[in-house]
Amino acid sequence: MLAALASALPAAERPFGLVIHGGAGVIPREQSSAEAEAEYRAKLQEALDAGYAVLASGGSALDAVVAAIKPLEDSPLFNAGKGAVLNADGICELDASIMDGRNLAAGAVAGARRIKNPIVLARAVMEKSPHVMFTGDGAERFAEQIGGIEFVPNEYFQTERRREELKRAQEKEKAAKGRKTASAGEVSGLDQVSGVREPVYLGTVGCAALDKNGNLAAGTSTGGMTNKKFGRVGDSPIIGAGTYANNATCALSATGHGEFFIRIGVARDVSAQMEYKGATLQEAAAASLEKVAKLGGDGGMVAIDHHGNVAMPFNTPGMYRGFHLSTGASAIEIFAR
Amino acid sequence: MLAALASALPAAERPFGLVIHGGAGVIPREQSSAEAEAEYRAKLQEALDAGYAVLASGGSALDAVVAAIKPLEDSPLFNAGKGAVLNADGICELDASIMDGRNLAAGAVAGARRIKNPIVLARAVMEKSPHVMFTGDGAERFAEQIGGIEFVPNEYFQTERRREELKRAQEKEKAAKGRKTASAGEVSGLDQVSGVREPVYLGTVGCAALDKNGNLAAGTSTGGMTNKKFGRVGDSPIIGAGTYANNATCALSATGHGEFFIRIGVARDVSAQMEYKGATLQEAAAASLEKVAKLGGDGGMVAIDHHGNVAMPFNTPGMYRGFHLSTGASAIEIFAR
Repeated sequence: MLAALASALPAAERPFGLVIHGGAGVIPREQSSAEAEAEYRAKLQEALDAGYAVLASGGSALDAVVAAIKPLEDSPLFNAGKGAVLNADGICELDASIMDGRNLAAGAVAGARRIKNPIVLARAVMEKSPHVMFTGDGAERFAEQIGGIEFVPNEYFQTERRREELKRAQEKEKAAKGRKTASAGEVSGLDQVSGVREPVYLGTVGCAALDKNGNLAAGTSTGGMTNKKFGRVGDSPIIGAGTYANNATCALSATGHGEFFIRIGVARDVSAQMEYKGATLQEAAAASLEKVAKLGGDGGMVAIDHHGNVAMPFNTPGMYRGFHLSTGASAIEIFAR
Repeated sequence: MLAALASALPAAERPFGLVIHGGAGVIPREQSSAEAEAEYRAKLQEALDAGYAVLASGGSALDAVVAAIKPLEDSPLFNAGKGAVLNADGICELDASIMDGRNLAAGAVAGARRIKNPIVLARAVMEKSPHVMFTGDGAERFAEQIGGIEFVPNEYFQTERRREELKRAQEKEKAAKGRKTASAGEVSGLDQVSGVREPVYLGTVGCAALDKNGNLAAGTSTGGMTNKKFGRVGDSPIIGAGTYANNATCALSATGHGEFFIRIGVARDVSAQMEYKGATLQEAAAASLEKVAKLGGDGGMVAIDHHGNVAMPFNTPGMYRGFHLSTGASAIEIFAR
């Protein structure tokens, strides 16, 4: 009903806007100085402005999502594109997904190593293949065949900060192995990150947008977890977990302890609550996050519905986030209010 | 309410059972002879019996799912494990996933090449790692580290029938390329299978089970699409798309044109309809399949709820399927009734 009302408004009065995130977790000390905070805020503002400019000029929600995510991928501040975390072999492996609420079209890549902007390749998978998801080398071979996708050497993504983080993670892992007999979790070599209850801040990025035509879209991009092994895939490239968009309900991008977001199917679950029991966006987002928390997971999400309502719940100490709506409302926030 | 009633029954009277599938589509002519049909029925019966024996002796739904899927993976009749379809390089790449409705634990592998029973590895990912999904070589390195997982050379999976299918698909692709300028779909080299409206039968396998303790579980295993490229991932290893299980609602395994099942988030969607609007399993499964059909997708699913209700909807000419319940009801079916 309300959705119908919104699209019945004259074009000039139809709400539009976007919401972005740069990851949730315990914000590390080195990011908490006034100077570092200003740097993060400036980059989030740049991303918001890029996406909003697309929407204000009548562009699509899909274009706005890509426009907002690209500067975050290009910035070493976040765990996506340049500055992504390193896997156990010291390589950046990138995941991204995107979804178009108009027709439920979706695209995703997992484990890309040479694609400058994984969100752009995810969109190409959606628009230029009959498929939804490509992994590893395959994603890059697809990019080579279609052309027009920017390639960079893996070194482009790697930063000194992430090398240090990997070194610390591997030393911790080694120490843990020395201390006691290997448990199943240790054999997997990943418990030093994921088994820890303290929500590590990594910095997945994402965006959800509503355009002047009432179309919704969402996208997410990440480097995954520091010291990850075994081609581990988190929620970011999983349609329905880290990303979902449906014009009838909402567009959403999640961030956090990906395994829990997959098990709940968070993005799909928020949409389902709105569709099947008439929950508001705020109610649905909060309820899904509560399910994640109940399983022991941490994180957050940003979402926007057809009316321009925005939700940005998280259960960690901080989540880099921001929104800008056609009503004039706009903010960049980091910590819980 | 009803769920509470079911588990309040004395143990001896609690319903249990399972439902399996061996893929949906247009059953090829060579599989339609009385002899071939008998062979398929016998193998489905063997799988049903293996799963039912576990349940009847008080075993878990999870154990029953693995027990039912293993013989289907080991049989060359279906597109999973031995007899899986070949990718563009003539290699079998196997995907599988499993989910435990008790605690929403889940595990998945995509692109495994040397694991005899991918469903067993998916379960190990769930139980022996803090993660949900491993891809490609990584999945196999994990298997090596934990031990106890049977490895085979890729040739073990490859059959003459699948080599012929690949040859035909590649000849068709070559002919299509010669005929006209390459479109985006052709560049991806996959439209000869997925762009075709006719639902090709391939033979993904899956199972959903309810045990005497009221626990639900589901699993799915597949070789994906003939001549697939680019590390394409379908719905089978995607939790929420091809597989989902939640004791509060249902357990479900899907089969069909995977991209559409991902976009709808079929398995998660059926569960959500039951949870949020009180739909019956039958209603929810039919509604989700209708959404897939509306997008242009074909396929089907098998599902069971807490009360032992079973749903097996499909919108293709045939779906290999069967169920066996503690009420005594049992059947193996191939075509629409």
